[in-house]
Amino acid sequence: MENRTNIIDCTIRDGGLVNNWDFSVEFVQDLYHALNEAGVEYMEIGYKNSPKLLKASEPNPWRFLDDQFLKEVIPEKKNTKLSALVDIGRVDPDDVLPREQSVLDMIRVACYIREVDKGLELVQMFHELGYETALNIMALSSVPENQLIEAFDMVKESPVDVVYIVDSFGSLDPSDIEHQVKKFKGMLPNKKFGIHTHNNMQLAFANTLTAMRNGVNFLDSSVYGMGRAAGNCHTELLVTHIQKASYELKPVLGIIEKHMLDMRQKWEWGYIIPYMISGTLNEHPRVAMAYRDSEDRDKFVEFYDKVTSPEASVAPATK
Amino acid sequence: MENRTNIIDCTIRDGGLVNNWDFSVEFVQDLYHALNEAGVEYMEIGYKNSPKLLKASEPNPWRFLDDQFLKEVIPEKKNTKLSALVDIGRVDPDDVLPREQSVLDMIRVACYIREVDKGLELVQMFHELGYETALNIMALSSVPENQLIEAFDMVKESPVDVVYIVDSFGSLDPSDIEHQVKKFKGMLPNKKFGIHTHNNMQLAFANTLTAMRNGVNFLDSSVYGMGRAAGNCHTELLVTHIQKASYELKPVLGIIEKHMLDMRQKWEWGYIIPYMISGTLNEHPRVAMAYRDSEDRDKFVEFYDKVTSPEASVAPATK
Repeated sequence: MENRTNIIDCTIRDGGLVNNWDFSVEFVQDLYHALNEAGVEYMEIGYKNSPKLLKASEPNPWRFLDDQFLKEVIPEKKNTKLSALVDIGRVDPDDVLPREQSVLDMIRVACYIREVDKGLELVQMFHELGYETALNIMALSSVPENQLIEAFDMVKESPVDVVYIVDSFGSLDPSDIEHQVKKFKGMLPNKKFGIHTHNNMQLAFANTLTAMRNGVNFLDSSVYGMGRAAGNCHTELLVTHIQKASYELKPVLGIIEKHMLDMRQKWEWGYIIPYMISGTLNEHPRVAMAYRDSEDRDKFVEFYDKVTSPEASVAPATK
Repeated sequence: MENRTNIIDCTIRDGGLVNNWDFSVEFVQDLYHALNEAGVEYMEIGYKNSPKLLKASEPNPWRFLDDQFLKEVIPEKKNTKLSALVDIGRVDPDDVLPREQSVLDMIRVACYIREVDKGLELVQMFHELGYETALNIMALSSVPENQLIEAFDMVKESPVDVVYIVDSFGSLDPSDIEHQVKKFKGMLPNKKFGIHTHNNMQLAFANTLTAMRNGVNFLDSSVYGMGRAAGNCHTELLVTHIQKASYELKPVLGIIEKHMLDMRQKWEWGYIIPYMISGTLNEHPRVAMAYRDSEDRDKFVEFYDKVTSPEASVAPATK
């Protein structure tokens, strides 16, 4: 694991939240080869959650990664490492092989602040199985300072390699990111840090650059920004802008040209006004996503009135 | 003219470069009222260039602003002031009335670095006619340091109110902007500053925020980003994000909902791969714009090869 900049492309994992992981094997293989040629260090190829625990009725290979299947998809690993994300309570530890028997290199654990203890138990287990590990504390913009301090006391003692700053709601700006990075670094002087952004306010790339300039060296992104709601920082922007001899833009352009334009026609993500509004209000995009699925999808003023009305704040279940 | 933040909405002026100023009077009136309700301080309602000097064969009211026509469009001025842009060699001084006879409040002069002397002559004249003035030095990212220093020596002596940092090619990032702002402020301690950005690398909003945090208080933007090629910083992002009691997002959402979605279907601007490439290469978007007008519009790899080939650099006329 390098101390320098590492890009983790999350197109399959976070983009799968847009299209229920409706990615062909051909696309995933094309993407792996392109990312490898582009010099991208990691590809997050999906979730390694348990279909049993999620009571899934249909197969969903990128949501429920299986080592045997992955070996068929990527029979020959190249420089780009593979990563998977797991959620607390959704991963079955018995599904996870020791790293030397797996094509996965890194397992990242996503958790909310109240579950950091459970998250760190999983981290410990994956660490012992030989994986690189990361802890992604979600919805950071809504975490009270004292809870973060308590969580960091536990994180300090953990073998976790990378601690992520996750702007789940796309509500942070570069000043906020700088503040958060300095806080994380001050409280966890011996850890590496990562940044995962959403593009609700067109700040995902700028926030990622700000984090990098402040010493964060694991940078999440997706090709053409494909990720839930407003999407993520764009992989093509990172590989063209960051000064690193191994990065090449052209292979990523090839993927956008061959696949992403059609996918963007079929599925929606990116800078879309209701997502901008949820970002600016520091709210989960799920209300906006439901609105975009309704026939009122372009009634922006009505949407704004709805989410800023006093009634909106008494219905936490929809937030 | 306030010392605090001022937004100058350029939707008509820069957006006109997208659609040859094919804006209805109704749209311009709706926009003026919305910007006024949103608390936006200025609306740049077009160019005040001369149809004679440009040998224009057809009327184009927002490109060749006429005071009598403007008074019919905006019979009652409200808080939002009106601005016009002029180009060196394209404006006829005889067309410009004294400010008290005009609905315009500010005239901005766009020039390249080699024309700063001519630009300042125009500024002097508009200043004497009573207008607020700005000098917009274009293509800053390609200006050699010594030429900038020479230009500033002239600017210092001028009555110009606002000196603009213009990222014409959308090639600057927040670090670059911070560097430029500090340089401008250091060399012109008695001037106010403005920022005009393009969104080729999704950095227009972040660059504008960076400029603001470094003391720039004239911020150009366009509703839904409508401006040439990749477009500009989005007005809706500024009014929702900047802490100023008078700013209101809702009127801008109304304009987007009523007009901009349809306009975006009809005309193209925004984050589009060839514009991202021209931004990252620090080049004028005109080659990319021509490509987008051709049947090869989505051949991104071919476009990239073309503009990065050794031959590309021997054809300055197409750059």
